Amino acid sequence: MKPETQRSEQDIKEAYYRELRAKAPGIAYSELEQLVLAARMLAAEGHWANGIAGQITARAEAPGTYYTLKFGIGADEATPDGFMVTNDALQALDGRSLPNPATRFHTWVYRANPEVKCIIHTHPPAVQTLAMIGQPLIVANMDACVFHDNCSYLEEWPGLPIADEEGRIISQALAGRKALLLAHHGLLTAGTSIAEAATLAIWMEQQAANQLRASAAGTIRPVPDHLASEARDFLLKPQVIDMAFLYFARRVLRDDPDCLAANRQPA
Amino acid sequence: MKPETQRSEQDIKEAYYRELRAKAPGIAYSELEQLVLAARMLAAEGHWANGIAGQITARAEAPGTYYTLKFGIGADEATPDGFMVTNDALQALDGRSLPNPATRFHTWVYRANPEVKCIIHTHPPAVQTLAMIGQPLIVANMDACVFHDNCSYLEEWPGLPIADEEGRIISQALAGRKALLLAHHGLLTAGTSIAEAATLAIWMEQQAANQLRASAAGTIRPVPDHLASEARDFLLKPQVIDMAFLYFARRVLRDDPDCLAANRQPA
Amino acid sequence: MKPETQRSEQDIKEAYYRELRAKAPGIAYSELEQLVLAARMLAAEGHWANGIAGQITARAEAPGTYYTLKFGIGADEATPDGFMVTNDALQALDGRSLPNPATRFHTWVYRANPEVKCIIHTHPPAVQTLAMIGQPLIVANMDACVFHDNCSYLEEWPGLPIADEEGRIISQALAGRKALLLAHHGLLTAGTSIAEAATLAIWMEQQAANQLRASAAGTIRPVPDHLASEARDFLLKPQVIDMAFLYFARRVLRDDPDCLAANRQPA
Amino acid sequence: MKPETQRSEQDIKEAYYRELRAKAPGIAYSELEQLVLAARMLAAEGHWANGIAGQITARAEAPGTYYTLKFGIGADEATPDGFMVTNDALQALDGRSLPNPATRFHTWVYRANPEVKCIIHTHPPAVQTLAMIGQPLIVANMDACVFHDNCSYLEEWPGLPIADEEGRIISQALAGRKALLLAHHGLLTAGTSIAEAATLAIWMEQQAANQLRASAAGTIRPVPDHLASEARDFLLKPQVIDMAFLYFARRVLRDDPDCLAANRQPA
Repeated sequence: MKPETQRSEQDIKEAYYRELRAKAPGIAYSELEQLVLAARMLAAEGHWANGIAGQITARAEAPGTYYTLKFGIGADEATPDGFMVTNDALQALDGRSLPNPATRFHTWVYRANPEVKCIIHTHPPAVQTLAMIGQPLIVANMDACVFHDNCSYLEEWPGLPIADEEGRIISQALAGRKALLLAHHGLLTAGTSIAEAATLAIWMEQQAANQLRASAAGTIRPVPDHLASEARDFLLKPQVIDMAFLYFARRVLRDDPDCLAANRQPA
Repeated sequence: MKPETQRSEQDIKEAYYRELRAKAPGIAYSELEQLVLAARMLAAEGHWANGIAGQITARAEAPGTYYTLKFGIGADEATPDGFMVTNDALQALDGRSLPNPATRFHTWVYRANPEVKCIIHTHPPAVQTLAMIGQPLIVANMDACVFHDNCSYLEEWPGLPIADEEGRIISQALAGRKALLLAHHGLLTAGTSIAEAATLAIWMEQQAANQLRASAAGTIRPVPDHLASEARDFLLKPQVIDMAFLYFARRVLRDDPDCLAANRQPA
Repeated sequence: MKPETQRSEQDIKEAYYRELRAKAPGIAYSELEQLVLAARMLAAEGHWANGIAGQITARAEAPGTYYTLKFGIGADEATPDGFMVTNDALQALDGRSLPNPATRFHTWVYRANPEVKCIIHTHPPAVQTLAMIGQPLIVANMDACVFHDNCSYLEEWPGLPIADEEGRIISQALAGRKALLLAHHGLLTAGTSIAEAATLAIWMEQQAANQLRASAAGTIRPVPDHLASEARDFLLKPQVIDMAFLYFARRVLRDDPDCLAANRQPA
Repeated sequence: MKPETQRSEQDIKEAYYRELRAKAPGIAYSELEQLVLAARMLAAEGHWANGIAGQITARAEAPGTYYTLKFGIGADEATPDGFMVTNDALQALDGRSLPNPATRFHTWVYRANPEVKCIIHTHPPAVQTLAMIGQPLIVANMDACVFHDNCSYLEEWPGLPIADEEGRIISQALAGRKALLLAHHGLLTAGTSIAEAATLAIWMEQQAANQLRASAAGTIRPVPDHLASEARDFLLKPQVIDMAFLYFARRVLRDDPDCLAANRQPA
């Protein structure tokens, strides 16, 4: 190894990324367990403050089938048993469970984006408020850089997202990015992993809250593009995302150590 | 069933509404239990932050009699025993309990609106703040649509609502809608069920908080009327309201599983 | 009793006030216990968010002596043993305990206002923020009416309130009212009872928070004077104040049922 | 002692400072324990709300070595075992642990400021928001006076702080003060003790929140310099800082009495 004082910025960074890949822990939870943890960490951040709106879905084992939280169950009370599996037509595979009707538009996003593993759609307070004033998300601090050229904006609300037209519109608006601000409505994140969709949803609500306060207090100065894109690429490294997800998951498990028990009823 | 790709939007929605009616759970709690749960879920949302102002009432069994929380008891400590029954003249049927004097104006609303089962009047922080600046509630996101053409505004405060004049004014201002923003004062919701009055009160405070932040940060863009009215009609379906109420009730019961015990003293 | 429909507003109100005096519960806690409860309820409302600034004092048994929380003890950990007694020169009667130096200015207020029993001085976030922008408290909703012609404003900050000059200035600025907003500094309430000082301090912070949000979102419309003064007189009735205090006290005791134990060490 | 009425302001203050030095408690925790307590008190104030960004470091026993929280561990779950020791080149002395790459810039601050014992760098919500609008911290209330001529502002963000250039820039911007607002980024505090760095970080976030709300609601009036500097000197007295730190530490220990156990795993 060269003496530290002679190492270039590039050297230092690349050495660190190697160390990160070697030492960072991986996620050992099953996908259903990750969904429970994701639902609860989002609930802890206020994403289900308004009740039972919002959905979290992921591709299930069989093609064209999806995990989704049963309608009426709050994300803060999610357990493995609180999830159901639907097909593309939103029919419950178990014949009994009731899905949230808005889950239908998720299927459009999955069909158009084969790399997407998990979709989260919520109406948390700050995003919902930003959605009232027609401001796209602005990248103006380091943590917000995960959204640099990575958060689309759908300016017109197509109305209650129960049928197919909304699915077409939302899927098109996402345009291959990982996040979407839906005017008059809420947020959508589409991740290549459950961890990515969940952490992006948490951070999007946090940044929306910042943006509202910043707009009220002064004039927002965006981060220069080249710095934003470098920071985004670091913050979206799977090792960094997974460490953040595991940290939020430990918070969830500290609050309710038993939440992953297989047969536990929601409540 | 037709193949999914040939089904019209209308078909999809109607099929879902049938499924919703068939599968959604009903509320099995007694009315007194629902009042306890409603009081506590409102308290958890900050509706009694300022102490002992605010009332929650419902029609009791005998005509012209009403359940109301005893004056001095906070909504977060409500139990079945914390409620009393008054007549139209605000006399305690048990001869001992003290009602909140403002409960008097509720009787005016009940007399003028036979379909109203439950009335909630509170001064939660965001509604109270909106009431300071003379802004009616604006419908600018999907969740706010429950208030589309459904939230009146009383611009002049008649003063301390202890006697009859306030009852006449408030009852008239409601004008058959389910919600009312009282300038200089607070909110009133009047539901055909306890669940409806409670969820509307929770959502009204949440939307008032959104509106304050949105007004400070930018210019609010209202939702177009035809979309707002469709969303309102879905969100006010009794099955959707009841599922939201039951979810908020489970949160209450998780915090204090014993709160419905018949003889438990408040505190 | 006359039939309800023939009773005048005045009749209804007077009858209610008689009922209130007959039925409202009194405060049975000792003064030291009330101080512990007051300290903790203020802490729960964020009055000690910034650490160990702020004081709560009350006249002790011997003339010219005062209870005060020992310096370094947070209000959320107050116990009877956490209070000390000082004389007018801020000397600890026990010879050991350390008072907060700012307690000195309280003695000036006590000397100038024989009816004052308890003084609270804190820097809670919203009052502290209002104190940064030179806005006196505005009475623009029913709950704020307790401050109608009852909250003075000291526009110039005399600096760190450790010596006597600050006592003279603050005492003069209070001008016989029950509350004072200190520019660049915080709040002071001076009550004829511990319950009054405590509830006014809680409400002042809540109203300051409302005022900040209202100012950011629109133009505040003050309550007309005659309505404000009627509401103030109702809300300041000792029975109403005591019920609010007892409610806040029950919250404190639910959080830590053991906080009044005589020999319990703070922590 | 002279009669109180004849004592000068200076006399009163000096006598109090002597009493303070004689009676104030000292900090008996080891440095590693103080780091655990500091991490957790900052977490309780929201400094790790966004996940695993942020670092807390302190000089370790051997010159050029530093304690730092292992990357991926949240400050709210810190334990003695959650800390690692690195050298100046950010190499883990234990060969196994992974540091946060941004810890590298801390070493630049330590080298340039021999009196600095502890550095905290976080992105808490209000500071992060202030960092979006290019406003330096304004001293406009008594508690903010600790930052009078004591909080620098770095207007240009050098980008992701992983390599050496950021260390040079940040170290230079600090300019010997104890606090630094980093545009587009967050805060840094550099204390001569762990207690000082921690309390300043808590207060900086609180004052940033105040400033945002004050800016939205009106025009901020700064505190005159001579009063600000007197208050700063009092508030930064080691006895006052240590008492505040010990108070925040008791809160931490009340939440998790076992957090200082030597072999306890984070989580």
